[in-house]
Amino acid sequence: MIQTDILIIGAGPTGLFAVFEAGLLQLKCHLIDALPQPGGQCAEIYPKKPIYDIPGYPEVLAGELVDNLMEQIKPFQPGFTLGERAQTIEKLEDGSFVVTTNKGTKHQAPVIAIAGGLGSFEPRKPLLDNLSDYEENGVAYMIKEPEIYRGKKVLIAGGGDSALDWSIFLADVADGVTLVHRRNEFRGALDSVEKVQQLKNEGKISLITPAEVVALHGEGKLDKVTVKKTDESEELQISVDHFIPLFGLSPKLGPIADWGLEIEKNAIKVDNSLDYQTNIPGIYAIGDVNTYPGKLKLILCGFHEATLMCQSAYQRIHPDKKYVMKYTTVGGVTGFDGSKKEAPKAVVKAIN
Amino acid sequence: MIQTDILIIGAGPTGLFAVFEAGLLQLKCHLIDALPQPGGQCAEIYPKKPIYDIPGYPEVLAGELVDNLMEQIKPFQPGFTLGERAQTIEKLEDGSFVVTTNKGTKHQAPVIAIAGGLGSFEPRKPLLDNLSDYEENGVAYMIKEPEIYRGKKVLIAGGGDSALDWSIFLADVADGVTLVHRRNEFRGALDSVEKVQQLKNEGKISLITPAEVVALHGEGKLDKVTVKKTDESEELQISVDHFIPLFGLSPKLGPIADWGLEIEKNAIKVDNSLDYQTNIPGIYAIGDVNTYPGKLKLILCGFHEATLMCQSAYQRIHPDKKYVMKYTTVGGVTGFDGSKKEAPKAVVKAIN
Ligand SMILES: Cc1cc2nc3c(=O)[nH]c(=O)nc-3n(C[C@H](O)[C@H](O)[C@H](O)COP(=O)(O)OP(=O)(O)OC[C@H]3O[C@@H](n4cnc5c(N)ncnc54)[C@H](O)[C@@H]3O)c2cc1C
Ligand SMILES: Cc1cc2nc3c(=O)[nH]c(=O)nc-3n(C[C@H](O)[C@H](O)[C@H](O)COP(=O)(O)OP(=O)(O)OC[C@H]3O[C@@H](n4cnc5c(N)ncnc54)[C@H](O)[C@@H]3O)c2cc1C
Repeated sequence: MIQTDILIIGAGPTGLFAVFEAGLLQLKCHLIDALPQPGGQCAEIYPKKPIYDIPGYPEVLAGELVDNLMEQIKPFQPGFTLGERAQTIEKLEDGSFVVTTNKGTKHQAPVIAIAGGLGSFEPRKPLLDNLSDYEENGVAYMIKEPEIYRGKKVLIAGGGDSALDWSIFLADVADGVTLVHRRNEFRGALDSVEKVQQLKNEGKISLITPAEVVALHGEGKLDKVTVKKTDESEELQISVDHFIPLFGLSPKLGPIADWGLEIEKNAIKVDNSLDYQTNIPGIYAIGDVNTYPGKLKLILCGFHEATLMCQSAYQRIHPDKKYVMKYTTVGGVTGFDGSKKEAPKAVVKAIN
Repeated sequence: MIQTDILIIGAGPTGLFAVFEAGLLQLKCHLIDALPQPGGQCAEIYPKKPIYDIPGYPEVLAGELVDNLMEQIKPFQPGFTLGERAQTIEKLEDGSFVVTTNKGTKHQAPVIAIAGGLGSFEPRKPLLDNLSDYEENGVAYMIKEPEIYRGKKVLIAGGGDSALDWSIFLADVADGVTLVHRRNEFRGALDSVEKVQQLKNEGKISLITPAEVVALHGEGKLDKVTVKKTDESEELQISVDHFIPLFGLSPKLGPIADWGLEIEKNAIKVDNSLDYQTNIPGIYAIGDVNTYPGKLKLILCGFHEATLMCQSAYQRIHPDKKYVMKYTTVGGVTGFDGSKKEAPKAVVKAIN
């Protein structure tokens, strides 16, 4: 059982910044995310695109923002359960909560902060009869550890940025990458499209278009797929160790919708006049996942909500203590790792 | 009469960011600040100190944050009335407001956003009989345009960062800088203290400590001051064109307290459950200057409040229009100066 002060569901920008604000209050955090990496929408949907409305950043790439947030929260050593979906919640007699993921990992905390954005990112899957037989046995919808593909034969399907970027990346790692797409045209960043063209010309990526994977084969483990070219009757049999359909991820509020929380417009209602708490005391909702009058689904709003939420969580966890806020400029940042950041102090010094 | 869509009182980080959010909604802003430069507390009190809790900035100097905000709002061409204090407000028949400064400058707008922080920064003045006779005639408490001191004899009094930094700066501009402080010890950044020591050794700054200015002289215009050394009975007569006592600025809510707004704990009460509007419709209060249950006087909170305020202001100014929010990443940023920032578009391109 993983234990922490604030269990954060969702490691998007809001959940990440909550770790920092909690840390200033000496509260520890653990984050759960269905995605294999932190950053939420910024990391999954548009990492290479600029955002213009982060205060103090005339322009910042979404992926850079996530990197900066990860750097900012480092002193507070957050724990991560990645690639798992928070599934069920129960309340213990002592008032704390236990959250269990779809893979059975259990987490206990006195405070839950749902920072689930538009929901848990779930992959769109191809319609293939025996697909589920091969999940975890050769079929994957996201790439968690690229190293497991080293020296393996990989077939990627899809026509967007993920399919392009992973084909490029794995061309150097795997023993052969085949990219299958149902059209000749790919949709993505110009440099990614051009790079795939170049790798194809160099024979480092085999391209089959327009085509689709129509059948999976193998005893217990995937070892072959059937690919049908759209404009021909011919079918190709291709030996592979891994089939990775990258047809995009779509967010689903999913199991959280059944936790007894007040839901409105597919979002969780919170008390914005105080602390972004839900109708269940001890469970907060911050960032894109919540709703209240005048709500804007913007990153900067999530930052503010996370900050006020942490103050309320502190009072809940330490009902007897009175927290006196200190500016970071004045008090510095004291990490759980023993690190200390501090402004240079003024000197008092005679001039003669 | 200066006319604008949103008149912002206070050019601290909150007021500055409000310009950006208003600009996204195609609303124009004008800012009034008592200080000669934008940036509020960040620029006036701690420009060279690091802040650690600006989201996405593991560390940023307060002065850098202000520079970045100025860069971010540039496309929206805000107007500035600097070095003047917003003094009175009146409501016209058409529902708009007119705000007049202590120097008589008039501004008209349908929406007022008070982003006045801890209040208008007012200088602490030395106790000298005929001081007010020389204000605007040789005595100044802040430096608005350093160029007016070129070739002039300047006497600065004070022992903190402002006195040190301006002495250093003016040593290169003025025809002689004298620094007077009532102690031998100065309190400031180590490098500033050391730089003044060096300039003193080089004869570029005359230092008189421990000492105080005790009298001002001159017909209509300041031309001489009397300085008394604390430990001696002797008094020095020093010819000067300018006397600049830099004894610190202290913020005072001041005239705004008499505008009929609900005040609590020296701050303006607002409706945090909706749009940070005050008890007077059309007047909002954002950033350090407002109060509500759970309020934190933090920069990141001001950013959020400014953003929600602008949405409400838009509805007030354009009651018939429905604004559909577009992410900056998707819609880009279109400046009033004709500039356009935009994310590179995805291509749709065949690979053969
Ligand atoms: C193309 C695009 C452009 C954008 N441009 C801007 C912009 O310019 N400015 C701006 O402010 N905003 C922009 N946004 C919106 C911005 O990305 C979101 O406001 C922000 O990501 C919200 O952060 P969050 O942390 O609240 O949620 P998210 O980023 O959505 O992260 C939530 C995370 O929670 C996880 N999760 C949810 N439920 C569960 C569960 N049950 N178990 C495990 N994990 C779960 C999800 O997998 C996800 O990773 C843009 C969005 C898109 C798609
Ligand atoms: C030493 C120090 C360290 C700090 N460290 C941090 C930190 O680490 N993190 C953090 O988030 N915050 C920190 N703060 C607080 C932070 O600076 C404030 O929250 C922030 O400046 C508030 O911004 P604002 O725009 O609301 O108001 P301000 O920055 O106070 O600006 C308000 C402006 O309004 C002007 N004004 C007011 N009334 C009038 C009037 N009637 N007419 C004309 N002008 C007027 C004032 O002159 C001022 O320039 C710190 C503050 C100090 C002093």
